[in-house]
Amino acid sequence: MNIPKTQLPRIVIIGAGFAGLALARSLRGINAQVVLIDRHNYHLFQPLLYQVATAGLEAGSIAYPVRKIMHERPNFYFRMARVNEIDTQNQCVLSDIGSLHYDYLVIASGTKTKFFGNRDMERYSVPMKTLKQALNIRSLVLENFEQAVVATQPQERDFLMTFVVVGGGPTGVELAGALADMREHVLHKDYPDLDFSRMHIHLIQSGDRLLNTMSKKSSAAAEKFLQQMGVQVHTNLRVNTYDGQVVTTSSGLVIPSATVLWTAGVTGALIDGLSAQTLEGSSNRVLVNAYMQSIAHERVFVIGDLALQRHSDYPDGHPQMAQPAIQMGKQLGKNLKRLLSGRQMEPFKYRDKGSMATIGRNRAVVDLPRKHFSGFFAWLVWMFVHLFSLVGFHNKAIVLLSWVYNYVNYDREGRLIVRPFKKRGFVSFTSDEI
Amino acid sequence: MNIPKTQLPRIVIIGAGFAGLALARSLRGINAQVVLIDRHNYHLFQPLLYQVATAGLEAGSIAYPVRKIMHERPNFYFRMARVNEIDTQNQCVLSDIGSLHYDYLVIASGTKTKFFGNRDMERYSVPMKTLKQALNIRSLVLENFEQAVVATQPQERDFLMTFVVVGGGPTGVELAGALADMREHVLHKDYPDLDFSRMHIHLIQSGDRLLNTMSKKSSAAAEKFLQQMGVQVHTNLRVNTYDGQVVTTSSGLVIPSATVLWTAGVTGALIDGLSAQTLEGSSNRVLVNAYMQSIAHERVFVIGDLALQRHSDYPDGHPQMAQPAIQMGKQLGKNLKRLLSGRQMEPFKYRDKGSMATIGRNRAVVDLPRKHFSGFFAWLVWMFVHLFSLVGFHNKAIVLLSWVYNYVNYDREGRLIVRPFKKRGFVSFTSDEI
Repeated sequence: MNIPKTQLPRIVIIGAGFAGLALARSLRGINAQVVLIDRHNYHLFQPLLYQVATAGLEAGSIAYPVRKIMHERPNFYFRMARVNEIDTQNQCVLSDIGSLHYDYLVIASGTKTKFFGNRDMERYSVPMKTLKQALNIRSLVLENFEQAVVATQPQERDFLMTFVVVGGGPTGVELAGALADMREHVLHKDYPDLDFSRMHIHLIQSGDRLLNTMSKKSSAAAEKFLQQMGVQVHTNLRVNTYDGQVVTTSSGLVIPSATVLWTAGVTGALIDGLSAQTLEGSSNRVLVNAYMQSIAHERVFVIGDLALQRHSDYPDGHPQMAQPAIQMGKQLGKNLKRLLSGRQMEPFKYRDKGSMATIGRNRAVVDLPRKHFSGFFAWLVWMFVHLFSLVGFHNKAIVLLSWVYNYVNYDREGRLIVRPFKKRGFVSFTSDEI
Repeated sequence: MNIPKTQLPRIVIIGAGFAGLALARSLRGINAQVVLIDRHNYHLFQPLLYQVATAGLEAGSIAYPVRKIMHERPNFYFRMARVNEIDTQNQCVLSDIGSLHYDYLVIASGTKTKFFGNRDMERYSVPMKTLKQALNIRSLVLENFEQAVVATQPQERDFLMTFVVVGGGPTGVELAGALADMREHVLHKDYPDLDFSRMHIHLIQSGDRLLNTMSKKSSAAAEKFLQQMGVQVHTNLRVNTYDGQVVTTSSGLVIPSATVLWTAGVTGALIDGLSAQTLEGSSNRVLVNAYMQSIAHERVFVIGDLALQRHSDYPDGHPQMAQPAIQMGKQLGKNLKRLLSGRQMEPFKYRDKGSMATIGRNRAVVDLPRKHFSGFFAWLVWMFVHLFSLVGFHNKAIVLLSWVYNYVNYDREGRLIVRPFKKRGFVSFTSDEI
């Protein structure tokens, strides 16, 4: 990997998501060499990915070049690489650009989409975990309408104008809401020859309520908002099959649809080489102690969505969200400094600042530790929190400008099909190439 | 194409570039049905494409959704389609989404990259006429540096850090200048482990001066600016071959380089079905009379870069730039209204407002009809003219914000490799799929 050898201990961080980035930032001034590895050269602000997918924001507004964070930090290195394996015996990371010895390894590789073994779904539905996938969704949605305009059969038009979102977590709720906003404010102006009473948005949740990691009040409010916006919400429903044409479900309901957006599950983005005893089977998360240290490998730490710390308040692990990831990264930054100077590490303690989800224009739900609210004020809070959480002044300014413009004009000017992306033969949407 | 039949005459416009868009806009209120066809669903502001390629602007900031221009115009239709052929006998356009009868046809399909029959160049060099190509260049440039960082051999690093721009017109000059700006202000901060005295930018021009459609003063100023910025300018030099590894030239100069950017020529983007007698052989432009009417087909008009009108002031046709295209579109809009109301059409008269090119930070050249200037003031003029020429308030605001930010911070935050694009095997860069 062409990293110079020094007298300093070497800390290798895998992943520049919320956890890895917070850690790298908090290591400023440490007496060590720090190597950050990610397969992308940018940090992605995932909570706004659905706005890229629905033409509200440009890809560049929610991504930040990782190398910029490294500026003027003499012993910090970034490498764009895919890590294939770790060798805990020899303290070594193996990647597509070579191997690297570590003194301390931090794994912050997060999660990836989980299809529960459903191969059809993996082939024909579209997940939304990366910028490429969000841009693919944007193209796909718009291509559907361009096709619907020239379709001569009503069934074909209905097929193209029906969208199925699988998964009732924040991502699914936000995507379904944004599609409803597009129908209400943008699409009918762009396609005056189409009948938008025939555009259908289905949101399918296997559990008995949406947003099941939030309060019941938030779940109820989100469902009410979505229904007001014309989204067909289905709870206690599972999708069985999808062949690119028709979705079949556990209740017998059958939905012909050109577009199935898959937000129903994630699983740990594991890296080969961790011993099996350190894994929690069903979630593929890595078990760590109070210091985010692997229970089997003293020099390996795990933070972010991939880490599973069985804390008394969170026996099944912390929620897989930005806040715990950021707090873990900061805490580990302090602990590594303590470790290197011979002091005792401090156990990680998550401070719950609450959670929130937006549903659409003027509508959001917010759970604070002791308080719940929803509606316009919640939506304002959601916007400010997300705006100020974005990395970099430029991104903040661009996003604010776009939001104000979109809000005032009921518009989304990102509706550009830059790379057309209609399903072709056996191209899988989850392929790394697309 | 699913366009309703009406009593109104039907005007079909092929191409939503500067000419086609100006025409469509100026047809507001006409007593006709208007169908605009383009293979993209957006109008592209090509003069700023090089800034997308060099990470200064996001793709969405210089593209504008065509359908938005059609809002609230009852008899206007847009179709995203690729036109394969026109049948002047039966007055019919044949496309990948069906055929369409026209009463009047306007061809505004512009130009495409010309490789002068050099197959190697077509395969291994990268042109820059579309948004996809600009984004590919951005990825490619950044991927080179990510590879250079881990390269162990000095020759390999030099190969990756050498850029060859072929073509000394405005696009080539602006690209070479922007690469030099990136080296000066951004790249050395991102890659402190690389020696940027070893990064080379070659600009190769076959003629005896750069910007040969502008004044000799502008050519000289542009060359001086580029040399100050460390670009190696070669005039009277032709590239012979490039195999993806080494550029060979007419003087015997040999340049090993991973990246050849091709801006050396364009040719008319002709559509099958125009009779051969209407074409100008070497440029593939279509001969038109004073009303931009095809000399062979009374109901076919041609505007923009594709049109060749032998005017006494411009015996070889008007310059292939935005201004003539826009003026042709506006004039044809007036003429079609006249034609439909039985009045005489007016001949097209180009009013030269001058031309300009930017070289880099604080450096541009401007030719007005009677005046030439260069340097900081020219650069300010260049910026304001381009800013106000952008379509849409949102794009203007985003571009202004990005420019101010980039200028103040000596930065370009778009340096994101969203879709990696390293040359692989026999993938051709000019393929439509990429």
